[in-house]
Amino acid sequence: MRTRPLKVALLGCGVVGSEVARIMTTHADDLTARIGAPVELAGVAVRRPDRVREGIDPALVTTDATALVKRGDIDVVVEVIGGIEPARTLITTAFEHGASVVSANKALLAQDGAALHAAAQEHDKDLYYEAAVAGAIPLIRPLRESLAGDKINRVMGIVNGTTNFILDKMDSTGAGYQEALDEATALGYAEADPTADVEGFDAAAKAAILAGIAFHTRVRLDDVYREGMTEVTAADFASAKEMGCTIKLLAICERAEDGGSVTARVHPAMIPLSHPLASVRGAYNAVFVESDAAGQLMFYGPGAGGSPTASAVLGDLVAVCRNRIGGATGPGESAYAALPVSPMGDVVTRYHISLDVADKPGVLAQVATVFAEHGVSIDTVRQQGKDGEASLVVVTHRASDAALTGTVEALRKLDTVRGVASIMRVEGE
Amino acid sequence: MRTRPLKVALLGCGVVGSEVARIMTTHADDLTARIGAPVELAGVAVRRPDRVREGIDPALVTTDATALVKRGDIDVVVEVIGGIEPARTLITTAFEHGASVVSANKALLAQDGAALHAAAQEHDKDLYYEAAVAGAIPLIRPLRESLAGDKINRVMGIVNGTTNFILDKMDSTGAGYQEALDEATALGYAEADPTADVEGFDAAAKAAILAGIAFHTRVRLDDVYREGMTEVTAADFASAKEMGCTIKLLAICERAEDGGSVTARVHPAMIPLSHPLASVRGAYNAVFVESDAAGQLMFYGPGAGGSPTASAVLGDLVAVCRNRIGGATGPGESAYAALPVSPMGDVVTRYHISLDVADKPGVLAQVATVFAEHGVSIDTVRQQGKDGEASLVVVTHRASDAALTGTVEALRKLDTVRGVASIMRVEGE
Repeated sequence: MRTRPLKVALLGCGVVGSEVARIMTTHADDLTARIGAPVELAGVAVRRPDRVREGIDPALVTTDATALVKRGDIDVVVEVIGGIEPARTLITTAFEHGASVVSANKALLAQDGAALHAAAQEHDKDLYYEAAVAGAIPLIRPLRESLAGDKINRVMGIVNGTTNFILDKMDSTGAGYQEALDEATALGYAEADPTADVEGFDAAAKAAILAGIAFHTRVRLDDVYREGMTEVTAADFASAKEMGCTIKLLAICERAEDGGSVTARVHPAMIPLSHPLASVRGAYNAVFVESDAAGQLMFYGPGAGGSPTASAVLGDLVAVCRNRIGGATGPGESAYAALPVSPMGDVVTRYHISLDVADKPGVLAQVATVFAEHGVSIDTVRQQGKDGEASLVVVTHRASDAALTGTVEALRKLDTVRGVASIMRVEGE
Repeated sequence: MRTRPLKVALLGCGVVGSEVARIMTTHADDLTARIGAPVELAGVAVRRPDRVREGIDPALVTTDATALVKRGDIDVVVEVIGGIEPARTLITTAFEHGASVVSANKALLAQDGAALHAAAQEHDKDLYYEAAVAGAIPLIRPLRESLAGDKINRVMGIVNGTTNFILDKMDSTGAGYQEALDEATALGYAEADPTADVEGFDAAAKAAILAGIAFHTRVRLDDVYREGMTEVTAADFASAKEMGCTIKLLAICERAEDGGSVTARVHPAMIPLSHPLASVRGAYNAVFVESDAAGQLMFYGPGAGGSPTASAVLGDLVAVCRNRIGGATGPGESAYAALPVSPMGDVVTRYHISLDVADKPGVLAQVATVFAEHGVSIDTVRQQGKDGEASLVVVTHRASDAALTGTVEALRKLDTVRGVASIMRVEGE
């Protein structure tokens, strides 16, 4: 057992950071035993130094994060500030000054993961970030280590707890989007400005990270198609129920069938109630992984919150400390496959389309012709008449997003089509 | 990139071994990229050398496993023979001759894990065994690495696919045990001699391994309480349904509430339909983990089969090869907590008890008195009369196994109790 402690600098002391500090104190003996050396909180960089932080020695608190990471005696920097800057500069500075880094920063990793990995490698240091995706759920490590001998074909998950809470509420109570969002806000599941969650930005960052790891390919945030869930209606849930489905906001990373390219996307989708992801309730997250040899795996747990995220950070901290004592580094970026990331138009899936149409003979024939002309094969059609108007619900076979988009554009031009009420992808079948 | 290949000796070439060899060939380029060096199959030890093995160079095949592991140029020995001997001696010989080991051998690890870990450590080599528990599901690595900074309080899982298939069949069709077993056998889910599965030996070995890792404590196979599922009846499933439950064969590893001891057990139990484990169908496995900081996690996937198990073996192979190139070793045994393993009598849970009783006044009072005398508090009682006989279904609050056993012994002595039809633990509430 080495007795000189490993020194940890904590950047950020909010919900996650304070929990990391707390566990480092309360579980100090366990951490020492598991790492093989004591770990010592050597400094805590915060923005507001006057705020009382229970259990943290005020002498450790500083507002000068840069000076902290430059001290030179820091073994591991734990970055839980979030956002792009100053986090990015602090992390690269940490590598330059000899520290390894544990980060929970999904936005930064999705945007600049390649550069950060390169900086880590240049200085022969570790960059771990289990907490960046799906909170406490062990996911990064299983994907990049447990499945390192397998070929992953699809990663499909509920990676945002706020939106899952809202959609689950809409599903179980029949509430509309706004009502469910209000409840999520009141209960603290949604932030005052919920844009990052409900518009899918948060999930898209996680999709970029997951796709990169799963396919050994750099996938940037800009490569991820993103569609929020603010336009999902109670009527969509009713349609989903008729199909034996529910609606989830999914992050989907797929290898094309020919294996030559990958896609990553975030959007609401219908999934069958029999799919394991359908029964993920409340603010929980779950990620479904399909690979050649392992088959179908699912990882489920709390996707956010101070304690769960701190659990993931501390797991990484133990690993990084162990590596440091052993003079080794863990797996770095693996982007050797360098597969092209295809645009959304190339994604192939099924669609559920609700049309408002004129209630007169020949409409179905017209609509069906448009689908056929665009090479989109229809699986089922359901017609419902109401006072001279009618609704037409079309469920397609698998077709490319480009073909579906062309179909919908053409449908909108038909006189007999009054409107396209909704288009929803159908996944997980 | 290092160009000298890492040499792998494969011990055993059955369902799993042949799949490991196949993937090593078909995915050679990917493995090279992920490891940072080529891996080469240097020898395959088998019992029957004359059997045709597609894709394996006959020149590599040998019946002399000992000579193979003693060659001295082997980097990693992959042991997929199973059983105690010769696997144990081959693994320790491998360490002595400079190789690290990847094993899928749950029986051996449950029985001699401590000695094998000690041998690995003595020679500064790795011993990895993700495939030993729950097939392809990444579980060992998440428990011993991802959750290394957390405190695990409970691991509860369906870790045997054969018995889950049988119980799922009984649940969904109303079939009896024998009928469901016959179907499992016909479909290849159960072996000709299903004892290891249906009597819980297989699950008990996995429970020992999981408890050891989760609690940083040596838990031997003998420490695991074991009860098979051959006596679960259609009537039990009917009772479970009335309670909003189903029945699963569970492996449960728990830290006592005071934290001072642990228990490990395998037995059939009722769990609420709302529990994530209740919806694990067919031969799938799933393990539910509860920890202080992370909260509730679940890992789900195929628990057996050649390809899934090979996926887990290859993930370990990549990790061990990477460690070897980096001159490091991964986490070894962590048994520092050395908590006492309490006997089954100390386990505290709830119970569902069906009694056949005389249908006359005062029986319930007598029965209730016996429960009270043993300190077992009753939650609900349901009485059903039929032709001078009656059944009494008692569901208790939490009580120790010892108290429940004492209660049942006393009940059997009552004149008015004709028989104890079933006793089933109730978990996951």
